[in-house]
Amino acid sequence: MSDGVTIALDAMGGDHAPRMVVKGADIALRRHPDIHFLLFGAEEKVRPLLAKRPRLASAVTLHHTDEVVADDTRPSLALRTGRQSSMRLAIDSVADGRADGVVSAGNTGALMAIAKFVLKMLPGIDRPAIASFFPTRRGESVMLDLGANVECDEENLVQFALMGDVFARTVLGLVEPTVGLLNVGSEDLKGNDAVRGASARLRGTVTPIHFYGFIEGDDIAAGTVDVVVTDGFTGNIAVKTAEGMAKLFGEFLEASFRHSLSARIGYLFARGALRKLRMRSDPRRYNGAIFLGLGGIAVKSHGSTDAFGFANAIGVAVDMKVNGVLDKIRIELGRLSEAPSAPEPRAVSTS
Amino acid sequence: MSDGVTIALDAMGGDHAPRMVVKGADIALRRHPDIHFLLFGAEEKVRPLLAKRPRLASAVTLHHTDEVVADDTRPSLALRTGRQSSMRLAIDSVADGRADGVVSAGNTGALMAIAKFVLKMLPGIDRPAIASFFPTRRGESVMLDLGANVECDEENLVQFALMGDVFARTVLGLVEPTVGLLNVGSEDLKGNDAVRGASARLRGTVTPIHFYGFIEGDDIAAGTVDVVVTDGFTGNIAVKTAEGMAKLFGEFLEASFRHSLSARIGYLFARGALRKLRMRSDPRRYNGAIFLGLGGIAVKSHGSTDAFGFANAIGVAVDMKVNGVLDKIRIELGRLSEAPSAPEPRAVSTS
Repeated sequence: MSDGVTIALDAMGGDHAPRMVVKGADIALRRHPDIHFLLFGAEEKVRPLLAKRPRLASAVTLHHTDEVVADDTRPSLALRTGRQSSMRLAIDSVADGRADGVVSAGNTGALMAIAKFVLKMLPGIDRPAIASFFPTRRGESVMLDLGANVECDEENLVQFALMGDVFARTVLGLVEPTVGLLNVGSEDLKGNDAVRGASARLRGTVTPIHFYGFIEGDDIAAGTVDVVVTDGFTGNIAVKTAEGMAKLFGEFLEASFRHSLSARIGYLFARGALRKLRMRSDPRRYNGAIFLGLGGIAVKSHGSTDAFGFANAIGVAVDMKVNGVLDKIRIELGRLSEAPSAPEPRAVSTS
Repeated sequence: MSDGVTIALDAMGGDHAPRMVVKGADIALRRHPDIHFLLFGAEEKVRPLLAKRPRLASAVTLHHTDEVVADDTRPSLALRTGRQSSMRLAIDSVADGRADGVVSAGNTGALMAIAKFVLKMLPGIDRPAIASFFPTRRGESVMLDLGANVECDEENLVQFALMGDVFARTVLGLVEPTVGLLNVGSEDLKGNDAVRGASARLRGTVTPIHFYGFIEGDDIAAGTVDVVVTDGFTGNIAVKTAEGMAKLFGEFLEASFRHSLSARIGYLFARGALRKLRMRSDPRRYNGAIFLGLGGIAVKSHGSTDAFGFANAIGVAVDMKVNGVLDKIRIELGRLSEAPSAPEPRAVSTS
């Protein structure tokens, strides 16, 4: 990373903004010392926070604006009226090349609508998808769409598969990631028209995708595939269901250790190991959802995250840039559109 | 339960049938001493298992058949050709009144298709839903549909809400259960046409349903509502995602306790409490999915369950009968169809 990466931050987005944003930027800077930040937000609130962090302050260019997109603003309204908002200005800086990517913990719908309008779609992609990492038995997988599209057709799912594949190869560094389509059963007959159609096309594809086939809900955590493809309605509900289960299990576990004197003593001996378990399933580690399919890098952080989680979301944007994910998706999409519709005959070696 | 309940069992359905079925019936009989069982299956396999259990044998009428619906048989084929199968004969016994309900751990699609054909739908219900209990922070909730219908419209979701409400009041014994519609956000604008339409109708309903509104995935485990209503595609994936997470968490926990000598010692002290935790999240406790909306009681057990899990599925069928769930759903549906379409003006007290 000798050239450095410039990341635009919506300083006013998120429940604990701008403090959490500034602190998160500081943590991210420690991890990636050559990031430069463009911060967009209320100068009178942000400046004092930077004053306490001279190292971060020297890596930041602050752009003042008073406008903020509220959490309950409709995306269409935010798009029309919020042109001087911290969110919009941060996205604009990616569009005009001043920044390599944008991170916001603000209103998800507004961020998606503005990013789509300002950054446009990659050629060959009809709709963006929200992608994120997911902890599994084997490490982590990529899952998309997590809520950008309530309804998806066969073509959308095929495009998501292709983007997820490139993402897994570049950001996760996997040589031949497996891609699975989330369904209610593994047999060909199962599911709706969209998943059956997408499956047929992915099986016959000329892209380099290693298509596993249909997977079921329990395959997500099992790590059966590296890339889980689904529509935004199902994906959003599945991921939030999993988060809810993790939280419930954590609470049950805590209650177990308060259960008796013996259990309390056991906790004292096991707490190092339990701390590791907690770290392993810490949702902040998986914070930072990518809007894949846009012509620029845009990452959404959980609105309720803390500085540690926000720093991870910044890390996702940096990884996207450093690994040249968008260029690689562009190349794959280009190959797909140039590819013959029937597989080419294999050359027979005569040597 | 002075009159006793007769339950028909598909002795040949499930990975470990018929041994698991017979053993499960024995466990269920200990819990509900006045059940009578009709067992349908291969006499030469079932008879020796009964011989070892004289108490159970005296509560069983065995009906021999050689035919079995295989796990990979298409539902339509099972319906046309499997008329002498153990599954079909068990369902027939409910239709002709010899049994009060049927339990099978066999092919889900075939069981649904045959049960729908033989037992018919309740008047006013267009499609059956698969309902099951789900562990939550507050105890347990009912969730439906878990996979009977890949696509659902507004009307289906409203009917599921009504059936889930009656089920929660009768089987869970709740006075005023809350009903929530699973969606990708809580705002009115969120989601697809089906959930938005169903929400509008449930808000204006003249049924006694206490409609909470939209809930999100993490609300399931949080126990935000008593009845979670969703389409079969999303519901199936959400429940299996949750099962996968519970399994992953259990594995992480086990690995944590093997992590160091100190953690192993901690385990020795805490194992009583941890056993309780395991019991609390044991999926066998939640085994037994109900096909709600049919004119008879049909319960599907997990195919891979053991005798303990199968006994719980039998318990669900017994509870359905004892609590008169079907009759109560019939009454509610009748009220719904008689109800005026506009809310009646409230009488003003003059006293």
